[in-house]
Amino acid sequence: MTAIAPMTTVIKTAAPRVTHALAADLVRAQLKRVEAALHAVPAIEPAGLRDAVEVILSSGGKRIRPTVALLVAGALGHPTPSEEAINIAAAVEMLHTATLVHDDLIDGSLMRRGAATLNAAWTPVATVLTGDFLFAYAAQLAAAANSMPAMKLFAETLGVIVAGELRQSFSGWTERGTREDYERRIYAKTASMFVLATTAMGHVCAAKSEQLAALRAYGHGFGMAFQIVDDILDFTGEQSSVGKPVGADLRRGLITLPTLRYARLNPADPDLACAMRGECDRATYDRLVDRIRHSPAIEEARRVAHDYAGDAIRALDALSDSPSRHALIALADEYIGRGH
Amino acid sequence: MTAIAPMTTVIKTAAPRVTHALAADLVRAQLKRVEAALHAVPAIEPAGLRDAVEVILSSGGKRIRPTVALLVAGALGHPTPSEEAINIAAAVEMLHTATLVHDDLIDGSLMRRGAATLNAAWTPVATVLTGDFLFAYAAQLAAAANSMPAMKLFAETLGVIVAGELRQSFSGWTERGTREDYERRIYAKTASMFVLATTAMGHVCAAKSEQLAALRAYGHGFGMAFQIVDDILDFTGEQSSVGKPVGADLRRGLITLPTLRYARLNPADPDLACAMRGECDRATYDRLVDRIRHSPAIEEARRVAHDYAGDAIRALDALSDSPSRHALIALADEYIGRGH
Repeated sequence: MTAIAPMTTVIKTAAPRVTHALAADLVRAQLKRVEAALHAVPAIEPAGLRDAVEVILSSGGKRIRPTVALLVAGALGHPTPSEEAINIAAAVEMLHTATLVHDDLIDGSLMRRGAATLNAAWTPVATVLTGDFLFAYAAQLAAAANSMPAMKLFAETLGVIVAGELRQSFSGWTERGTREDYERRIYAKTASMFVLATTAMGHVCAAKSEQLAALRAYGHGFGMAFQIVDDILDFTGEQSSVGKPVGADLRRGLITLPTLRYARLNPADPDLACAMRGECDRATYDRLVDRIRHSPAIEEARRVAHDYAGDAIRALDALSDSPSRHALIALADEYIGRGH
Repeated sequence: MTAIAPMTTVIKTAAPRVTHALAADLVRAQLKRVEAALHAVPAIEPAGLRDAVEVILSSGGKRIRPTVALLVAGALGHPTPSEEAINIAAAVEMLHTATLVHDDLIDGSLMRRGAATLNAAWTPVATVLTGDFLFAYAAQLAAAANSMPAMKLFAETLGVIVAGELRQSFSGWTERGTREDYERRIYAKTASMFVLATTAMGHVCAAKSEQLAALRAYGHGFGMAFQIVDDILDFTGEQSSVGKPVGADLRRGLITLPTLRYARLNPADPDLACAMRGECDRATYDRLVDRIRHSPAIEEARRVAHDYAGDAIRALDALSDSPSRHALIALADEYIGRGH
C-alpha cells in the first residue's frame, strides 16, 4: 500500500514553441478530434491519479506530432481524415506522453511541460503504473487504426525508444562523448517517433511505397532537427522561458550537440573533463555553460539542424502539391528557426 | 548514470507445477518454436541487462500460457500451428514476463520463479526500462501474428492488467477485504491473460463466433481457478518448495480467498483486524497463517477453484472432439488438483 501525495504545483510553461500558422489552420478541426481521442483514456483508480493523467494530457504543448501526422494525411489526399487516421495520430501523441512519464522517473526531472511532473508528486510505483497504463492506451489507439503495418511500426518504435533509454542510462562516459552516440540517441528518443507519425499515417492512408519512403525521410529529418533545436535551446534559452536552468542537460550529464561541437573547437578547455563525466561542481557548470552558449558551437549545431530540416523538405518532392504539403515544408522551415 | 550491481544469486525453484502428460506431449515440438521466438528478443545494452533478460526467460516455469494457446490451435484444427500462431503464443508469455518484471518493482518481492528478481539485483531504472522493453517485444510478437482482432485484444488486456495493478496498489483496505475486489483483482492479474491466450489464438486461427465465446469462457474459468489454486498454495505449501515464507501474500498485505473464507468462518478472530490492514507483527502473522492453513477455509477455497475449472471444462463442449480438446480438459482437471 503506497501513500499518495497530492499534486499541488502546476506552473505554466512559457517555452517559445512555434506552430506555423498555415499548419495550425489546416489541422485545427482534426486536432480537436485527436484531443477527444486522447481524453477518452479509460478512467483509472485512484481518482487522484486520474486527475494527474488529465493534467498531463491538458498541459500538452503544441501537439506537434499529431499535427505532422494530420498534415501527412492531408498531403496524401485526406484533408478530412478517417477515424483510423485520427486514432493513429492520437496513438503517437499518447506514446510520447507515456515515455515522458517513465522518463520523469528515470531522469528525476522536476518539471516537464511546465507542470510538476508525476514523479515529483507521486510515488515511483504510481509513476511506473501510470506510464504502463498510458502505453497500453497508446497501443489500443494504434490498434484502432486498423492497419497491421502501422501497428507493427508502432511496436517496433516502442522497442527503439526503450532501447535508446537503456543505452542513455547505462552507456559509459567515453561512448557518450561521441557524435555517433548522440545521433543514435536523438534518433531513438525523438526522430523515431516522428518517423512513426509520418509513416504509420502513410500506411493508414494506403500510401504507395515511394510515398512511404518520402514520409520516412521527412519524419527522420524533421525529428533530428527538432531535437537538435531543443538541445540548442537548452543552452540559449532563458531560465524563465524554458522553465529550467540554462544548460540543464549538461548539468545532469547529458552530452548534446552544442557541447560536442564546443569540445571539438576547444579541446584544451580544462572544465570539459568533469563535464564529460557529469561530475563538475556548480560553479564550473555555470562557467562552462556560459562559454558554450556564447561560442560558435551554437551556430555550428544550428547548421546541423538546418541540414536535417533541408533533408526533410527535399524528401517531400515525392509528394504531389497540396496545402498540407506546403504546411509540412513551412513547419520544418519555421521550426528550425526556433533556436534563433 | 546509474550503477549496476551484478546479479549473483540464482536459486532453483522446486515449486510443484503440473503440466498434464497429454498436454505436454501434444505441444512439445511447438513449445520449442515458442521458446525460440521468446529468445529472439533483440539484444539490449548493457550486456549485464541482456544476461538478466536471458535468466528471466530461461527460468520460465512450465510455459502454461503458451501451452494453453497451442492446445487451442490444435483444438481448432491446427495441430501444427502457423508462424502467426507461434507468435501469438509467444506474445502472451512475453507479456506475462514483462508484467512480472514491473511487479517485482511494485511489490518489492525478492524472488520470482526461484531466480533472484531483476529488482533485487538492479536499480529501479533498469527494472522499469527492462520491463518496458519486454512489453515492446511482446507487442511486436503480437503484431507478428497478423490479426487485427488479436492485436486489439492484446492491447486491451495490457490495459486491464495495469488498471488492476493500480487498484491493487492504491485501493483502500475496506475494499480489499471483499470477495468482489478479490475476483476483480485475480481476473485482471491472471484470468485476463488466459482469456487472451485462448481468444487471441482463436482469432489467429479464424475461429467462429461461438468457438470464440467458448474459448473466452475456458480462458476465464481456467485462469480464475489457476490463481485461486496459487493463492491456496501460498498457505498450504512448504517454504522450501514454494521458495517463499508460508502465507507470504498475507504478510505483505494481499488478502486472498483463503483469508476471505476464514474471515467469514471466524469473524471474531482478533488477529484479523491488523491483517486486513496489512500491519500485524510477525508473531501474529505466524499464528494467523497457521490457523488459516488448518481451517476449512482452504477446502472452501478449493471448491471455488473447482467450480471455475468446471465452467472452463463445460465451455469446451462447443468445440469438436480432438486430442487437444482432451488435453485442455485434462489440464484444467489436473491443475486444480495442484492444491492438494
